Amino acid sequence: MTITNDRGSAPRLLVTYQIEASCETIQEIAEDICIEQTVEVVRQLAQDSWIRENILGSVEEISLIEAAPLSEDNIYEVIISYPDRIIDYQLPQLLSVIYGNISLKSGIKVVAIKLSDDFLSHFSGPGFGVHGIRQLLAVENRPLLATALKPMGKTPEELAGLAYKLALGGIDIIKDDHGLVDHSFCPFKERVGSCISAINKVEEKTGKRVLYFPNITDRYEKMLEHAEWAKRKGVGGFLVSPLIVGLDMMRYLADNLGLPIMAHPALMGTLFSGIQAEIVLGDLMRLSGADMIVYPNYGGRFPFTEEICQKIGHALKKEIGRLKTAFPVPAGGIDIKSIQTLKQFYGNDTVFLIGSSLYVCSSNLTANVKDCIQRILDQE
Amino acid sequence: MTITNDRGSAPRLLVTYQIEASCETIQEIAEDICIEQTVEVVRQLAQDSWIRENILGSVEEISLIEAAPLSEDNIYEVIISYPDRIIDYQLPQLLSVIYGNISLKSGIKVVAIKLSDDFLSHFSGPGFGVHGIRQLLAVENRPLLATALKPMGKTPEELAGLAYKLALGGIDIIKDDHGLVDHSFCPFKERVGSCISAINKVEEKTGKRVLYFPNITDRYEKMLEHAEWAKRKGVGGFLVSPLIVGLDMMRYLADNLGLPIMAHPALMGTLFSGIQAEIVLGDLMRLSGADMIVYPNYGGRFPFTEEICQKIGHALKKEIGRLKTAFPVPAGGIDIKSIQTLKQFYGNDTVFLIGSSLYVCSSNLTANVKDCIQRILDQE
Repeated sequence: MTITNDRGSAPRLLVTYQIEASCETIQEIAEDICIEQTVEVVRQLAQDSWIRENILGSVEEISLIEAAPLSEDNIYEVIISYPDRIIDYQLPQLLSVIYGNISLKSGIKVVAIKLSDDFLSHFSGPGFGVHGIRQLLAVENRPLLATALKPMGKTPEELAGLAYKLALGGIDIIKDDHGLVDHSFCPFKERVGSCISAINKVEEKTGKRVLYFPNITDRYEKMLEHAEWAKRKGVGGFLVSPLIVGLDMMRYLADNLGLPIMAHPALMGTLFSGIQAEIVLGDLMRLSGADMIVYPNYGGRFPFTEEICQKIGHALKKEIGRLKTAFPVPAGGIDIKSIQTLKQFYGNDTVFLIGSSLYVCSSNLTANVKDCIQRILDQE
Repeated sequence: MTITNDRGSAPRLLVTYQIEASCETIQEIAEDICIEQTVEVVRQLAQDSWIRENILGSVEEISLIEAAPLSEDNIYEVIISYPDRIIDYQLPQLLSVIYGNISLKSGIKVVAIKLSDDFLSHFSGPGFGVHGIRQLLAVENRPLLATALKPMGKTPEELAGLAYKLALGGIDIIKDDHGLVDHSFCPFKERVGSCISAINKVEEKTGKRVLYFPNITDRYEKMLEHAEWAKRKGVGGFLVSPLIVGLDMMRYLADNLGLPIMAHPALMGTLFSGIQAEIVLGDLMRLSGADMIVYPNYGGRFPFTEEICQKIGHALKKEIGRLKTAFPVPAGGIDIKSIQTLKQFYGNDTVFLIGSSLYVCSSNLTANVKDCIQRILDQE
């Protein structure tokens, strides 16, 4: 019974799935996805012609990618299209349609998504993007330098002291470590208030703008209140862990708070078994309004390869409708000595997020920042 | 350099990680987790004794679970404790501390968590639980029967027509298919209004209470507004996809809306590569306030085993502080003919969520429901 390919002419989402299957089963698995991700019924309940044309997914293409030896499964790429209207132009439903139920199956992975221009026109994406962040900082000619206030356990005053020294060195962006929340030993408002004062003091002295991104990931009751309070205090933007609070919450913040957003990848590694890393950290983060996306650099303490890092960087810069491009923010054990190599690798439109290496290379934190920016400026 | 085991005496979270490693590396990997999930700095920056006692994770135990042949990695179970206070008694930070950054590493999986009574005392958990849901329905002596309004593509009137017939058969719970959102072809308020009217009409006639759970998973701007509106209309509870909107958003709804919550596992399969299914669908769902948790039944169209289904069922009923127990809601291709077997397997405190099989077993939907409830009541 063929129930697919009754697609109407309205705009559709294209999802490419990599599927492990035999040549006898691949067609049926592909058609099952069309049903599972939409109507979730046995086929006899989805025979209505309007539903077949306007609701069901449709198998557009099946390609054999890797033939397996003997009785093992082959690897196929299957393109399935879904009518935009079932996604209702919203992120939660997009995640659900792309991979909601089939996340509970096995051998199916999302390797590409293509959103229609009409669908994309319902999203603002990054509010600032590469160009907007550069304008805020008035830095055009080099990669940006960011660091995190850490470690958790320091008092607001101690962290503000670090912020002062970092700002004095001319750093571009200071963010909270993503583990800093509203701890009794370091309350959010005390921390943000102290750090903003310290940074303002330096800005008055040097004229160099420094953007501070406090972590607003928290229980729901606090998150928006913290964000609005911090905005009034003059923070540069917000650090958010979107998989933890929901991608659409980050999108809401980007759309409504009018400040840049830096996305943190906490918990996101779990998604990679089902959705390719560059879609999660690339396409989906831009769609959800992140201006800067933190992810592990290759060769650090995370097992990210050069290839993955390059693909994510590409996804943040490629054309996606009219969405602004976003900054890749490689992190996770970057050594300041490797800056030149990384600059070659990632290109100019990059934010290097450097933690420990910046703190330990000498006991003079301000000098360390100056040294690091000089390394960024140096020509090979 | 030993930096662990400086733990103070304050309450701590225990997390058991399964780790692939060699006997030479396991100790270092375990200690790295203690740092990665807390202070995120090189060890020389975490030497402060207050931080060592009050912030850092601590390796409590390392056990060899499976010795590998030759040069391959062994499998270890490592118990790491974290001070409760760094988790700030909130769900987003709990997810972050348990698995945030290390989700981006490989070979590390969460297989158990143990929350302190003090930590748990900050959470309400399920607002109704098994006992509360039974009271609402006045059904004490049998598993409950639930179904979904489907397929997507039907109009509000068509779905209300189904709800009417289902209610007339004496069904306990009717939920939206999780793909039903605020579609132009089936707007949320029209659907919910029509379905509630249909169900009220039957309740007046039969006196049998039926709980309707509309899907409120949606963009942030609509979700709370929809939930409050639907509550005023008299819905029985809410269907939420917590991984998509954030676990803490579901917790907020449970704490503040005063209606039962049914959790849908959309996208949750992605977590299982890093966090055991029974923790995600068991412990974490109860902590996040779900009264009923939908998950794939074994032997249906999802590859869940009997063992996983049993473990999830156990996690929903076991003692977790003073949190109420929650209903397992096995689903995903349940055949009404298998009800007796499933009743044996899951026990009395179960909600069977049956979709297609209930719709297709005869053309008389009301009779189908009656038949199914009779099957539930039958003694083997």
